[in-house]
Amino acid sequence: MNTDKLFEQIRQKKSFLCVGLDPDINKLPVHLKNSKLPVFEFNKQIIDATAKYSIAYKPNLAFYEFRGLTGWQELEQTVIYIRQKYPEIFLIADAKRGDIGNTSKMYADAFFKNMDFDAITVAPYMGEDSIKPFLEYPGKFAIILALTSNDSAADFQYFTSKANKPLFMEVLEKSKTWGTSENMMYVVGATKADMLVKFRELLPDHFLLVPGIGAQGGSLEEVAKYGLNKKCGLLVNASRSIIYAGNDLDFTNKAAIEAGNLQKEMELLLKKASIINY
Amino acid sequence: MNTDKLFEQIRQKKSFLCVGLDPDINKLPVHLKNSKLPVFEFNKQIIDATAKYSIAYKPNLAFYEFRGLTGWQELEQTVIYIRQKYPEIFLIADAKRGDIGNTSKMYADAFFKNMDFDAITVAPYMGEDSIKPFLEYPGKFAIILALTSNDSAADFQYFTSKANKPLFMEVLEKSKTWGTSENMMYVVGATKADMLVKFRELLPDHFLLVPGIGAQGGSLEEVAKYGLNKKCGLLVNASRSIIYAGNDLDFTNKAAIEAGNLQKEMELLLKKASIINY
Repeated sequence: MNTDKLFEQIRQKKSFLCVGLDPDINKLPVHLKNSKLPVFEFNKQIIDATAKYSIAYKPNLAFYEFRGLTGWQELEQTVIYIRQKYPEIFLIADAKRGDIGNTSKMYADAFFKNMDFDAITVAPYMGEDSIKPFLEYPGKFAIILALTSNDSAADFQYFTSKANKPLFMEVLEKSKTWGTSENMMYVVGATKADMLVKFRELLPDHFLLVPGIGAQGGSLEEVAKYGLNKKCGLLVNASRSIIYAGNDLDFTNKAAIEAGNLQKEMELLLKKASIINY
Repeated sequence: MNTDKLFEQIRQKKSFLCVGLDPDINKLPVHLKNSKLPVFEFNKQIIDATAKYSIAYKPNLAFYEFRGLTGWQELEQTVIYIRQKYPEIFLIADAKRGDIGNTSKMYADAFFKNMDFDAITVAPYMGEDSIKPFLEYPGKFAIILALTSNDSAADFQYFTSKANKPLFMEVLEKSKTWGTSENMMYVVGATKADMLVKFRELLPDHFLLVPGIGAQGGSLEEVAKYGLNKKCGLLVNASRSIIYAGNDLDFTNKAAIEAGNLQKEMELLLKKASIINY
């Protein structure tokens, strides 16, 4: 998918919501636990309930690897289900991978060729040759961790150079030369919304993936204020606040209400910024 | 496993060799390709051929995820095989994971509880709360990427502070306070052997995992010179130079010869450093 297609979907759905599919088997509604692939069954129902409010889904690999073979099947089935029923959806593997070149190539093939994700999150610590292999698939994106939403982000991401530049800015400046806004995006935590100003100065056109809304406490309004660009340029992720909004028979209704509320807020923000018409 | 047990094995086998199990299906000997789980069959034969020279094995997850469900089975079978036949072996998941706390916990459970690895490699970019969950399993180790063997390691790992400290030193200094030499190790590329001096100043007791011997061109002698401590303190990894030493019916003999040669070299180095007796 290219960013024009992504923007088209944003305008149609009046939303820039990404739903994180991070289902902890212990938190699933009891009535699903006897399914053959309970996490897939859960995902399917969450997706059906929220797809009209969401433009992207983001399974985090940890929640599938935790379940071994069954988890891998649940992940594959989730990807196939979205691809068949909602071909417009932007599908992100939240995997935070990164390894020496020949190994990163294997990860890229795993997620882009074998499983048809549109994007994968990658960790920058090992530098250019660990990320380049992810940039060589037309219509696919590497989403580089820049400034993450967790408290300990400060440990190294704010490590500061002689010229008073924090590491995350060095990551942005260096990595932006490796690709374009058509094969790279960046992660910025919603809990660091004010920093989005610096991101936009350097990366006016790139899409930014923003986790940390909801359970982690970031503000959507702040994120929009500092992060929106002409083609929206934001994918704002919520996971736990949507997928665990309910935990019994009506969990899908409750997830839909949560996703719908975020969509309505996003619609207002897109209108206010004149990205879509009133 | 604790480091005393690991050292006992090092003395018995007179070796600190770790074999990287990174089998690219396209490079396997033709006669294995019709097995039900060819990568597992390959690993099994490589392990049987090299176990008397090796104290550790290190499957890199990319090579298994690339193969989807089959790959995950091959990984699980490899772990079970080693655990049953060679219980003394130190088993490392080369996964380079790292995520927000509740997610890292899922990865830790996946690799330490569900699969019984002894250690997992982790990327430090997200800081303390992304690594702490890996430190809470007695007898298990997080192996933190510090200075990697690839060319682009320089991109960010040498990013330097006002006080003239490179990022990788900041990673060492900060992270060493999070745990002990009984639940943490560090990755240092063999291609950066001279830097081992700095590692040893700061981390006299920690084991260091050193990739980059063999196909990547690092020198074992240099690594030993700067990296050995009283309990050896080194796990030196070779992957491609051993597992692809041959590619037909006698690939196991060739792998054994390569591993044996490294073991002999290591035995001399251990004697020279008076870690084992002549």
